[in-house]
Amino acid sequence: MTVLPESEVDVLIVGAGPAGLMMALWLTRLGVKTRIVDKRTGKVYSGQADGFQVRSLEILDSFGIGERVWKEANRMLEVSFWNPDENGTIKRNARSVNTIPGLSRFTESVLHQGRMEHFFLDAIRASSSPDYEPPQVERGVIPTSLEIDEAAAEDPHAYPVTVTLRHLTEEEATPTQMLSNLSDGLFRSNLAEDDVNDILSRSRARETRDEIVRAKYVVGCDGAHSWTRKTLGRDFEMKGETTDAIWGVMDIVPITDFPDIRFRTMIHSTSGALMVIPRENRMVRLYIQLKEVSAGGGRVDRSQITPELIFSTAKKIFSPYKLEYHYCDWWTAYQIGQRTGDHFSKLDRVFLAGDAVHTHSPKAGQGMNVSMQDSYNLGWKIGLVCKGVLPRHVLSTYELERKKIAKDLIAFDGKFSKFFTGRPAKDIQNETGVSDDEFQEAFHTSRMFTTGLGVDYQPTVLVAKPPSADPNPLKKSSATSTQSLATDCKLGQRFPSHRVIRQSDARVWDLHHKLPSDGRFRLVVFGGDISQKPQRDTVNALGAWLSSYLPRLPTIALSPAADPHSGSTKFRTDRDPSVVDVLLVHSAPRHEVEMLSDLHETYHPFDSKLGWDYDKIFADGETFYEEPARAYEKYGVDRGKGAVVGLRPDGYVGLVTSVGQDGQGEIQKWFEGIFQSI
Amino acid sequence: MTVLPESEVDVLIVGAGPAGLMMALWLTRLGVKTRIVDKRTGKVYSGQADGFQVRSLEILDSFGIGERVWKEANRMLEVSFWNPDENGTIKRNARSVNTIPGLSRFTESVLHQGRMEHFFLDAIRASSSPDYEPPQVERGVIPTSLEIDEAAAEDPHAYPVTVTLRHLTEEEATPTQMLSNLSDGLFRSNLAEDDVNDILSRSRARETRDEIVRAKYVVGCDGAHSWTRKTLGRDFEMKGETTDAIWGVMDIVPITDFPDIRFRTMIHSTSGALMVIPRENRMVRLYIQLKEVSAGGGRVDRSQITPELIFSTAKKIFSPYKLEYHYCDWWTAYQIGQRTGDHFSKLDRVFLAGDAVHTHSPKAGQGMNVSMQDSYNLGWKIGLVCKGVLPRHVLSTYELERKKIAKDLIAFDGKFSKFFTGRPAKDIQNETGVSDDEFQEAFHTSRMFTTGLGVDYQPTVLVAKPPSADPNPLKKSSATSTQSLATDCKLGQRFPSHRVIRQSDARVWDLHHKLPSDGRFRLVVFGGDISQKPQRDTVNALGAWLSSYLPRLPTIALSPAADPHSGSTKFRTDRDPSVVDVLLVHSAPRHEVEMLSDLHETYHPFDSKLGWDYDKIFADGETFYEEPARAYEKYGVDRGKGAVVGLRPDGYVGLVTSVGQDGQGEIQKWFEGIFQSI
Repeated sequence: MTVLPESEVDVLIVGAGPAGLMMALWLTRLGVKTRIVDKRTGKVYSGQADGFQVRSLEILDSFGIGERVWKEANRMLEVSFWNPDENGTIKRNARSVNTIPGLSRFTESVLHQGRMEHFFLDAIRASSSPDYEPPQVERGVIPTSLEIDEAAAEDPHAYPVTVTLRHLTEEEATPTQMLSNLSDGLFRSNLAEDDVNDILSRSRARETRDEIVRAKYVVGCDGAHSWTRKTLGRDFEMKGETTDAIWGVMDIVPITDFPDIRFRTMIHSTSGALMVIPRENRMVRLYIQLKEVSAGGGRVDRSQITPELIFSTAKKIFSPYKLEYHYCDWWTAYQIGQRTGDHFSKLDRVFLAGDAVHTHSPKAGQGMNVSMQDSYNLGWKIGLVCKGVLPRHVLSTYELERKKIAKDLIAFDGKFSKFFTGRPAKDIQNETGVSDDEFQEAFHTSRMFTTGLGVDYQPTVLVAKPPSADPNPLKKSSATSTQSLATDCKLGQRFPSHRVIRQSDARVWDLHHKLPSDGRFRLVVFGGDISQKPQRDTVNALGAWLSSYLPRLPTIALSPAADPHSGSTKFRTDRDPSVVDVLLVHSAPRHEVEMLSDLHETYHPFDSKLGWDYDKIFADGETFYEEPARAYEKYGVDRGKGAVVGLRPDGYVGLVTSVGQDGQGEIQKWFEGIFQSI
Repeated sequence: MTVLPESEVDVLIVGAGPAGLMMALWLTRLGVKTRIVDKRTGKVYSGQADGFQVRSLEILDSFGIGERVWKEANRMLEVSFWNPDENGTIKRNARSVNTIPGLSRFTESVLHQGRMEHFFLDAIRASSSPDYEPPQVERGVIPTSLEIDEAAAEDPHAYPVTVTLRHLTEEEATPTQMLSNLSDGLFRSNLAEDDVNDILSRSRARETRDEIVRAKYVVGCDGAHSWTRKTLGRDFEMKGETTDAIWGVMDIVPITDFPDIRFRTMIHSTSGALMVIPRENRMVRLYIQLKEVSAGGGRVDRSQITPELIFSTAKKIFSPYKLEYHYCDWWTAYQIGQRTGDHFSKLDRVFLAGDAVHTHSPKAGQGMNVSMQDSYNLGWKIGLVCKGVLPRHVLSTYELERKKIAKDLIAFDGKFSKFFTGRPAKDIQNETGVSDDEFQEAFHTSRMFTTGLGVDYQPTVLVAKPPSADPNPLKKSSATSTQSLATDCKLGQRFPSHRVIRQSDARVWDLHHKLPSDGRFRLVVFGGDISQKPQRDTVNALGAWLSSYLPRLPTIALSPAADPHSGSTKFRTDRDPSVVDVLLVHSAPRHEVEMLSDLHETYHPFDSKLGWDYDKIFADGETFYEEPARAYEKYGVDRGKGAVVGLRPDGYVGLVTSVGQDGQGEIQKWFEGIFQSI
């Protein structure tokens, strides 16, 4: 028997789709030794997921990728609804806003998954430094066994997960569907069988290309057919409903006189339902209800489903408008259903994220977003545990926080799909139909969910909100928040971004651009009106206390790519910063504040090579160039006395307290609940 | 004697600084066969020019580069003025806006020249297509002779300019200053001698590395010591004034308690004057008056000027504030003076652009801008002449238009430098000083000039404005504009950018993003309120007339990179578009217009592969997400009856006329004066 090569890694990621790449990017920014493997040899160049929630865009922007998506993506701003008139002819009967205005600087947008994966890979590469080599995706690599040494599970220095990886040849890694029929658009659909066993059976004999990896953590981002999930056992099976409804999908450059082809459009016609998603590059995605085929309680006959069937159905629904195309970029079909699992991790050593632990229908554009946000939630936790900054018990917040989202998602999707598939009401009294008003109402109430901004994490050590709000079994923070001090910085929800003015140079910034995903917790000190001496003294007393308290917390090495919005970092600071970053946002008249002489050095830290940091103090108020900022009003903070808002590294609000001395106590209690040892 | 290799090229550019690269980019976007050579082997990585006018940013944005500069650059938003108080101690005595608000979506910004040159090279590469290979900068190549065949100068098919190029070795091309003393910051300053003769003398013996190039056009962008200018003869010498004043320049990361170090700051102290230009990467550029050294009517002793002298002077001026540094990126010194030439071209076959034809002091941040704008003015003219679209006589507008700018520039610079160097007024009555009020007044009146938006080109075939406005000798347009129809689209000035709403999908665009530098002239049809049938009929009658008239004009092949703001062009149209692009901006309520059925196909052209073009019709008015657009108000156009504005390929207004039948006549007359043959 051959002795297989063995190696150690902090984190092994299985699957290089959006969830896996988000995980890799986080760990890379934190400088954690990571490998990422994918069974496919090639990247995705067309089709697949395409919808970006505003929250996903905010998250991508926190890594410096968001503006690339935002520039290339098509923005969906308004939605139009078409229904049959009394003669059965489709007519536009309503127009509406698509994304709720004012929630975010982004709106819901569409760009194909492959472009975003390309941006992820660029960002991962950009994290390279003399001390750290970021991982490359190892393609054509598949795990064949996984074992956890349960006795070592709680040892922070152990590598208790043992995985065997097999390196495939190009031929083995190419799906048989692609070999046999290049035009089969179904091979990644939920109508297709899993091909892992197929791949394994073809590759079984060649164990010389196997290797053994010992990992501290393994994250399974390997999709709906997740090998990782199956390997974890029966407890991890997903449960849920599958309907008989089959939908077709086509990405085409349409040639049509349908007037709303560049708007998101819902058509309910006598020939079935259809949704138009206008995309980049003059393309449009059509979701088309296929009434002619049905799963009929079991598996559908895939041979029935052809692009010709899908397109001819679309043409019928569009009638009397004409629809043709010259270019078709991609097509597929899927069966509507919703499934999720009860367990998102085993022993907080092996985790599941994305489609591996929740599946649903694609029409609401949620899948890629919730998947990325799973690993956005998990990445910094694993990373900071690996770095010795956080204790292991923080990892259990992942399942608590994300399982709730997954349950909400499939409940939402079930309802949304039902509304969408239901026949249009010829009149409101028709009992079998879904009334138009009812559909629009469902659409509108779903919008908050589909922004991704409805996420509201439970009370734990990370979120100091009253345990009565959610009596979950995890350890709670001993800090007490005062939500009323910052009414629009909601505990458990993402801290919103509003415009503030940099004190040092009058430049207006979206505050999110000063909160990049670099692994740091943050205290946003809304200092109030510091032109008034008593308030300034209070803010400076907090600064003095922080200057003695923060050095007791760990430091964290920042990646060269950590601050993507402030230009390059040609000149480097001479020491690693604290894991807690402090920003001051005051409400005083800007020209009545001298940032160096009026304010404690905590708010403008000194570096022996770079001098004072001029990028930490911001004002509310007026500039010569833009509308007044009105940040205090938007954050719900009193302009006189201010507030302190504590943020997790993923930008969710964990603490709201006062600038005064009692606030110091709550800050200390919050951090004591979180960090490894203080 | 060796027979030298010979070849032909449409345009040979000498010099790969900002002017040369802008020229290359234009020609590349137009698909013109181009070579660009530079005597230096290396790119610029630090120092040199750094100031970007708002107009330069707009121009760079029209090629897709602007946002890269805008993201990395430091924005200068406010300016502060420091003067000695009664004890001689410097005190802030005024703060002011830096760029005039509301003129542009950009503000004056600072980034070192080398980054921009990098962006230029990327953009030139992006113009590659199956039919066109863009040029690479040929470094270490120097012309040694240039001759024009005057008899062939007016033959559009001739290559009448013969240039001998010498390919240098790495060693020959490296400036001796860099070999002998790496820290000599003066080697590119105007205190340094030209090194071309030095290079040539070292390389003279090796003629086997020479080649002969026959070019239709040569553009000398080879800087203040321009070999091209000298070769053209004595008539091309620059004339002007040189003062005795010497200034030092340092780019440092300052360690200072001076509170306004991140603002543009003018300090007049008892130890001399100093200007602070805050830059990217925590750097600051200091311009420091060196009173200890003087040209004294002749050449200054360069050995006197050291970084130690410059920095110690800066420290004195900053006192009582402290100034130190750990990092110095670059330093130099220069002598204040202004020079320009009477001739910008010889026979409209060899042209001079940038520092080759005007030099001045750097403090107002104009040099790189005016240089780039020279070749931005010239590039499309040469390119479209090479393509047979424009007649040669259009080339003579280059000298007319840009010589005026150069004269204005050196007049401005002389005045600005004098004000800046003048000693501060201890009180306003002090006759030898420049009063503070006077200086601020000069600064403020200069702002319109320093935006680059004050440019106002004269009446020619390109600009149909009354010849009485400027009785220059060039041929005039026979069209008559009606400026009152679009009061803020000023004839001869750049068409401003305001926000409009795309009819097809409600996305708000800066209108400049729909006017990329792709070589096309444009008609912006402000259609007025087309929800009213009489006005709609008028707009459609114009559309019908254009659909018969425009096919008589040439077509133009668009580069793959031609439309940098609308995403990539994965799917291509099936034919080249007209050299005249038509956009419609209406003022009707957006939801009362159906773009396909209400409007003539001129406004939504059909393509057999891509269907209708949904990117040509825009509305004024409201959206769900942003403040109302108010475009008609900002462009000064009547909401009811509208106007037609004709733009040159560089975005300057050439015609303002009515939407009605008389407008058709003026449009025809304007184009007949411009195009080769109609």
